[in-house]
Amino acid sequence: MPRTPLFLSPNRLLSSTKPRLQTRTQPERAPSFRPYLTDAIRAHQASKMAPQLDGYFQQVDTLSDSFIERLRQAVAIPSVSSEAARRPDVVRMGQFLADELIKLGASVELRPLGKQDGTDLDLPPVVLARYGNDKKKRTILVYGHYDVQPAEKSDGWDTEPFDLIVKEDGRMFGRGSTDDKGPVLGWLNAIEAHKAAGIDFPVNLLMCFEGMEEYGSDGLEDLINQEGKKYFADADAVCISDNYWLGTEKPCLTYGLRGCNYYSIEVWGPGADLHSGVFGGTAQEPMTDLVRVMSSLVDTDGKILIPGIAEQVAPITADEDGLYDNIAFTMDTLHEALGSKTTIFQDKKPTLMARWRYPSLSLHGVEGAFSAPGAKTVIPAKVIGKFSIRTVPNMEIDKTNELVRLYVEDVFKKLGSKNSLKVYPQHCGNWWVASPNHWNFSAAAKATERVWGVKPDFTREGGSIPVTLTFEQATGKNVLLLPMGSSTDGAHSINEKLDKRNYIEGIKLLGAYLHYVAEEPMN
Amino acid sequence: MPRTPLFLSPNRLLSSTKPRLQTRTQPERAPSFRPYLTDAIRAHQASKMAPQLDGYFQQVDTLSDSFIERLRQAVAIPSVSSEAARRPDVVRMGQFLADELIKLGASVELRPLGKQDGTDLDLPPVVLARYGNDKKKRTILVYGHYDVQPAEKSDGWDTEPFDLIVKEDGRMFGRGSTDDKGPVLGWLNAIEAHKAAGIDFPVNLLMCFEGMEEYGSDGLEDLINQEGKKYFADADAVCISDNYWLGTEKPCLTYGLRGCNYYSIEVWGPGADLHSGVFGGTAQEPMTDLVRVMSSLVDTDGKILIPGIAEQVAPITADEDGLYDNIAFTMDTLHEALGSKTTIFQDKKPTLMARWRYPSLSLHGVEGAFSAPGAKTVIPAKVIGKFSIRTVPNMEIDKTNELVRLYVEDVFKKLGSKNSLKVYPQHCGNWWVASPNHWNFSAAAKATERVWGVKPDFTREGGSIPVTLTFEQATGKNVLLLPMGSSTDGAHSINEKLDKRNYIEGIKLLGAYLHYVAEEPMN
Repeated sequence: MPRTPLFLSPNRLLSSTKPRLQTRTQPERAPSFRPYLTDAIRAHQASKMAPQLDGYFQQVDTLSDSFIERLRQAVAIPSVSSEAARRPDVVRMGQFLADELIKLGASVELRPLGKQDGTDLDLPPVVLARYGNDKKKRTILVYGHYDVQPAEKSDGWDTEPFDLIVKEDGRMFGRGSTDDKGPVLGWLNAIEAHKAAGIDFPVNLLMCFEGMEEYGSDGLEDLINQEGKKYFADADAVCISDNYWLGTEKPCLTYGLRGCNYYSIEVWGPGADLHSGVFGGTAQEPMTDLVRVMSSLVDTDGKILIPGIAEQVAPITADEDGLYDNIAFTMDTLHEALGSKTTIFQDKKPTLMARWRYPSLSLHGVEGAFSAPGAKTVIPAKVIGKFSIRTVPNMEIDKTNELVRLYVEDVFKKLGSKNSLKVYPQHCGNWWVASPNHWNFSAAAKATERVWGVKPDFTREGGSIPVTLTFEQATGKNVLLLPMGSSTDGAHSINEKLDKRNYIEGIKLLGAYLHYVAEEPMN
Repeated sequence: MPRTPLFLSPNRLLSSTKPRLQTRTQPERAPSFRPYLTDAIRAHQASKMAPQLDGYFQQVDTLSDSFIERLRQAVAIPSVSSEAARRPDVVRMGQFLADELIKLGASVELRPLGKQDGTDLDLPPVVLARYGNDKKKRTILVYGHYDVQPAEKSDGWDTEPFDLIVKEDGRMFGRGSTDDKGPVLGWLNAIEAHKAAGIDFPVNLLMCFEGMEEYGSDGLEDLINQEGKKYFADADAVCISDNYWLGTEKPCLTYGLRGCNYYSIEVWGPGADLHSGVFGGTAQEPMTDLVRVMSSLVDTDGKILIPGIAEQVAPITADEDGLYDNIAFTMDTLHEALGSKTTIFQDKKPTLMARWRYPSLSLHGVEGAFSAPGAKTVIPAKVIGKFSIRTVPNMEIDKTNELVRLYVEDVFKKLGSKNSLKVYPQHCGNWWVASPNHWNFSAAAKATERVWGVKPDFTREGGSIPVTLTFEQATGKNVLLLPMGSSTDGAHSINEKLDKRNYIEGIKLLGAYLHYVAEEPMN
């Protein structure tokens, strides 16, 4: 299982994005706010089904303060998985979840995962839980993670990152608020609201909450594969709430992710780093060769120059071609997220296609060269260029790796260098596309319409969530990505937040989804 | 004054070079060992001049143990100029030198240089000293530095870096042994041996020893310029012992250095670092543009692709053309120093010409991109490529900068990118070539022949020692680079050493040089 930021969930920027809401001052919205009142009639129709939902929704509103308090308690535990010193906090967060689940009546196991790769450090346990065991009900397996990205006030946060701060406009700032403590607690809150309202829980719920997601999900893949036909055996479908809306107003359901093949190109020659005064002009320099090879991979407009890659991409069908125009997405939103207008395309459709259904190649950096501020006259002896290709249907990992190897070796050979080159994949994660026509998605679409008063966009994402594919393969069941937060939450940034509206309506959404799941015909 | 490793003295590798002597086991050589006995007759002729030298040489041999003890005391002071915490040690080292000089009868000033650029840290003082003030004698200004590169045993040293360890084969390991405490103490030892032997010191000696050389000589340029016509006013010539033989056996005198123009290329677009899953394929990536620009600067065989650079280089004269064949330098030595055979040229002559008299362009690295081990799927928002051009006669700094700017901007423009680019020089230091026919060089050549029994090679260096040019310009006098150590000393590496032979014979050489200086006719 990869253990690097390679597999960040999509829409999480590695560095800060300015939260777009920051300069707005909005009145705190009532929890029952519906953004799309013009869709009220359609919502009314949906409400004919799953009649218990009104009582559930009222109960969520009634309990909203205690749900925010539960999130506050969770955010206060700095469960940073990438920092060894914080490991006890990560374990404490897992224990907090287990305790809450037990209080709600779930059966819980804290499953140890052994030592962290290459260390003597115990991995935090996976929280496995079951709520309900009624053979007449469907069983839904949900996944989330209780660890968070690092955060220090000194990184530039406006507030203490591990204090949940609820602003008047409804923004709730705190590390983990949206990624992924809010969504994880959403499932617990849904159980509590059902109990409090005296409404029968519509499904059996299996839960799998891990504590290493932000550091590569060490050990999780093996556990999922082992439990696919054991602990998870009676799961009828899988739901993951660990991604985000495409924008800030319209909910979406996500049915596809790009994969990612991450490569290193090593070039070496001299026995040690050299002084450019002494050796400049007499030695063939690995950095010169590497830069020339890297420059041959992709052009300014993102065109991948490696032969054979484009040929693997699935052709566009007529159906697909009409799909993009209706997606709630504007170039303004992209420019805002990008912080500039340096986009490759001017229009929405080619932009969405480039993100979702075409491969891309990014050059990430160079290891071994001078990378600090200032000036250093070094000739690096060995440099390692890093790049990755985001993959899409129908690209094959092995074939893509072979095309990369052949091309890079060929470009290097043409340089006529006496240095040596090696190119190899560091990690490969496949793309994933689910069937959005499955009852799992239909139920989520109806729930979205019931809660938000609007049909969700069916979207794909440009990034990777490898656990999605792992669950699909281990259980053989349909997997749905059902986001709670919006695109401006800044999951990996400073000032991470979750809007109170998205949290409370999101709790309603998760519960409603389970009710519609119970009513969906098998397909 | 540049304050970066840009201006390391030549032959100092930024990283470790394997000391070539390490696997040899040689008997400790007698201090009077002469490597080139076939030149004994010529040496005998030289010995007719400067007749007092035999007594001086005997005294140096007699005192050799105490000279090594003095070096041990100096090495024991960890005067690392780049580490703020070591600043008191640097100051202590300056004080040590001052105390020793006062004991020898010199007049000494510890000249403060104010605060280190951008800090509240006091710079270590420059030790200015005068030994002798006889208007009938010539006055020689010598320069050296008493600070050292960082060193920790854990870097890979075989011995404690600040304990001088004298091996049976004569290698003396210790940080600063060869760079530059050995040569600096050489001048003090020469004074002491004269006093002990009762031989009149042949010149007035002005000394300028600084404590920030390894961190950019902060403040020194201003001081030299101020004192050029004051403290240094009666200097007749300048001698710097802070470089190395071209190989391990044959001494040399150095009369030329390349300059160095160091550039940054900044490319930026997005407002913050991006996730390649979300933005890959939709944003123009600064790293893609930068790599394409950097790849257009130089090819694998070191050919500079910037138009107009080659045209500035001085043509080869017939005299010069015949000069290279006799230099004691072999490709084997270069391969050994390089740790590989990845040289551009197969033969000595084009290799020496490439190092000494042609410009070279090295790509040093990229700031702002991912540079750590592992995998990170970042699209860096702003990247800064670093490269430098080693300059030679008759290249002009301003003209070169303009050629670079025009070319880089043109290449970037042709990419058609919406990102922004800026290219600018970080530091520029001019090349330096002195007249090797000056009496300063003649005296050093005779001294070399007398001590080592062989005529020295007249060499240039590929690197830069900016203080050389500063002294030449501030005093208007000839500057000589007179090395003590050999090419395998590993000045900036782990296991830095000075051979006992080079130290003791080097003390004789510095004294002999002053005697021949006194006898040289004015020219």
